[in-house]
Amino acid sequence: MAKEKKMVTAITSMDEDFAQWYTDICKKAELVEYTSVKGCMVIRPYGYAIWENIQHILDNMFKATGHENVCMPMFIPEGLLQKEKDHVEGFAPEVAWVTHGGNEKLEERLCVRPTSETLFCEHYANIVHSYRDLPKLYNQWVSVVRWEKTTRPFLRSREFLWQEGHTIHATAEEAIEETERMLNVYTDFCEKALAMPVLKGKKTESDKFAGAVSTYAIEALMHDGKALQAGTSHYFGDGFAKAFDIQYTDKDNKRVYPHQTSWGVTTRLIGAIIMTHGDNNGLVLPPAVAPVQAVIIPIAQHKEGVLEKAEELRKRLAETGLRIKLDDSENSPGWKFSEYEMKGVPVRIEIGPKDIENNQCVIVTRHNGEKTFVSLDELEKAVAEKLREVHDGMYAKALENQNNRTYDCKTLDEIKTTLKEKGDGFIMAMWCGDEACEDSVKEQTGVGSRCIPFDQTSISDVCVCCGKPAKHKVCWGIAY
Amino acid sequence: MAKEKKMVTAITSMDEDFAQWYTDICKKAELVEYTSVKGCMVIRPYGYAIWENIQHILDNMFKATGHENVCMPMFIPEGLLQKEKDHVEGFAPEVAWVTHGGNEKLEERLCVRPTSETLFCEHYANIVHSYRDLPKLYNQWVSVVRWEKTTRPFLRSREFLWQEGHTIHATAEEAIEETERMLNVYTDFCEKALAMPVLKGKKTESDKFAGAVSTYAIEALMHDGKALQAGTSHYFGDGFAKAFDIQYTDKDNKRVYPHQTSWGVTTRLIGAIIMTHGDNNGLVLPPAVAPVQAVIIPIAQHKEGVLEKAEELRKRLAETGLRIKLDDSENSPGWKFSEYEMKGVPVRIEIGPKDIENNQCVIVTRHNGEKTFVSLDELEKAVAEKLREVHDGMYAKALENQNNRTYDCKTLDEIKTTLKEKGDGFIMAMWCGDEACEDSVKEQTGVGSRCIPFDQTSISDVCVCCGKPAKHKVCWGIAY
Repeated sequence: MAKEKKMVTAITSMDEDFAQWYTDICKKAELVEYTSVKGCMVIRPYGYAIWENIQHILDNMFKATGHENVCMPMFIPEGLLQKEKDHVEGFAPEVAWVTHGGNEKLEERLCVRPTSETLFCEHYANIVHSYRDLPKLYNQWVSVVRWEKTTRPFLRSREFLWQEGHTIHATAEEAIEETERMLNVYTDFCEKALAMPVLKGKKTESDKFAGAVSTYAIEALMHDGKALQAGTSHYFGDGFAKAFDIQYTDKDNKRVYPHQTSWGVTTRLIGAIIMTHGDNNGLVLPPAVAPVQAVIIPIAQHKEGVLEKAEELRKRLAETGLRIKLDDSENSPGWKFSEYEMKGVPVRIEIGPKDIENNQCVIVTRHNGEKTFVSLDELEKAVAEKLREVHDGMYAKALENQNNRTYDCKTLDEIKTTLKEKGDGFIMAMWCGDEACEDSVKEQTGVGSRCIPFDQTSISDVCVCCGKPAKHKVCWGIAY
Repeated sequence: MAKEKKMVTAITSMDEDFAQWYTDICKKAELVEYTSVKGCMVIRPYGYAIWENIQHILDNMFKATGHENVCMPMFIPEGLLQKEKDHVEGFAPEVAWVTHGGNEKLEERLCVRPTSETLFCEHYANIVHSYRDLPKLYNQWVSVVRWEKTTRPFLRSREFLWQEGHTIHATAEEAIEETERMLNVYTDFCEKALAMPVLKGKKTESDKFAGAVSTYAIEALMHDGKALQAGTSHYFGDGFAKAFDIQYTDKDNKRVYPHQTSWGVTTRLIGAIIMTHGDNNGLVLPPAVAPVQAVIIPIAQHKEGVLEKAEELRKRLAETGLRIKLDDSENSPGWKFSEYEMKGVPVRIEIGPKDIENNQCVIVTRHNGEKTFVSLDELEKAVAEKLREVHDGMYAKALENQNNRTYDCKTLDEIKTTLKEKGDGFIMAMWCGDEACEDSVKEQTGVGSRCIPFDQTSISDVCVCCGKPAKHKVCWGIAY
């Protein structure tokens, strides 16, 4: 067991230094590796396999809601980026500029896409002519670049992977419906695939996407009480259509402007998984996206029949469609236990000579360490059930954390005291709608507005800051 | 039928203007659309769906041969690109340079990856320490950028999508084996998924990848007799390992250099599909990668029961796992026939009142226009069989074209006469191995060396150019 101990003590405790604990997991679970390209990282096979599972599930959800994948160029000419005023103001300061092709200076600079609204708009202008061409429901899986000053693996990097949905509709109503539909798809995905509860809401004016009429977001609460924006969905109205001169002929033969949306989630979801479910033994992965859903570890594998039986179990489980690994390497069982704990494998199956004698195996669930003896006759059923239990248990635990750390506050003092005594969390407090108050809350207490939750159960009638009549309940917090 | 005619005459005949025919198909089958970013294109849903099918099949083949997906940054610092001398010489003249991040000038220029050997090497240096860490069998699905002067959709564009496999091995033997294995995987894929016969061979010294010891390639013959390089597999020896100081400790505790490979195919395969199988009615897609494998077209769909029956057939076929579309739009059957001919859907199923009466439907295969009546009781079986027939028929037709256009030539005059009388094709001729002769053949006849085929059945004992003893049989041709 010496080696097991070595592995476990190898990561920093999350209570001691949460940021270091996070970085340790990223490295020790072999999710990422740094490169000499500042702010960019290698996503290693184990990390990338999580992303592939996320992609696979989401892509099916997008296709089931009628979306098609496309691929736009990665470059945006400077002139094209500048067509929508708010949009360029928001993004120009943080884009990477290509100025030379080979040895020649380009006539016009190109930026590496930070997001692709402008490219989609140019394309729509080419292909949308009549109401019969609408809606177009597009998505693409690509990487984008934003020239961030400080970076952290998955959470904030200069290049990151994402999907960006872009849709164009005949009417405002349809576009708004789409914006909400996709926020719900993201919510479902987070809850059902990532076992991660989220808070749905609308961004305040100061926090919305550059060029949007309104931005909706889902916010998740991390282990340390900080908020992480897990996905956004934007309604654009006809602003982009006007800027890019996209018009269609409606049924009455009039030329009108269509309405647009965009929505996205990124590899930051992997950061969210780490900080929602991880513990001091390492990563804890939700079964739906775990590259290995169950690992089989033979005990006393040199003894006759053990490896054969382990392989038989592997085969039986693999046939049910599960992602199964048998580790028959020469490392000790103890070393293997900590290795797969570090990697967050949801279920561990132990099988040794005694178990074989008793026609059983031992199943240990990663998120709570519970041990169960299972008859080999019921292996498939038991493992499937355990995986469901793991998902439900992880979700319940995360929801409990979110509930325990959600605080209703009526005054700025109450916010300050809560943060001091209980630590960070979702602070619910009323707001008059004035940007000055939003800034003032942040200045005085440190928490910024995360979103205006869809659930508007009132806390009081007056703004937490100025005491004037309140318009909204806002969720405040410290954001990743 | 008026509309059908309109569609068909809307594309240029391939015999009249092959290049225009190609471009027409790209646009009319809705595969791509141009953008204001010179040399870059939008891959539209129908084109991207073909790429997704290619990805899906190849990715499974890569995983079945032990490879894992990763993701490297898209940027390469100038200093890193320069580490391997041949490599930088080959690629530096055609890379896009990022010089600014936001408003700040970068200390070191970054190029947008034209290929990622240098990034993988830097990563290997970090993670490969012992023989236990080998081999690493990696792949990534990304886009790359090469600043081409003249561009054409799929065939040559400044940005293109591809996969790049990168592997590192303990010994030269293992690396060479991998290089050959992946060439065979590509060959299998082209034959079994794309119905496209290819010629396997080795590139001459002058034509190999920048930094490689040897480059293997598969060459396909297009409808117009020109050759298209459909995939490459490179053996690097330990050249990159030395340049990047990658060493591992072997079983005898010595520090030694590992051996590497890389291999790739690109969206150019879609161009190859168009020019191998397409005809004057449009695209002809191999069933394995067709976004729609069979389209159901109701005849006299306003008549009672027709649409219901069509939907019943759609459902039955979709349940077998096929990609099926029912077009119940108000366009005429004639219009629909040409639309799906243009889009290359392998099988068309017609169902009308008379067919329903006779408990049958009509199946028409796209590649040869053959019409068959099929009992509805045997629908699933018949469609599956037809799709196999289509694949085999397409492959046989393409192979016949390749065989008919492969010419053995013993003299330069024979090459010239063949090209003049029979048009372009694979010209097989002997070569002494001297680069001067390779250049001279090109200069005098117009055809360049495509590869040294694995099949070295001799044509004569002497070089087609200088008359000295021949070392290799070379396949010469005009390349895309």
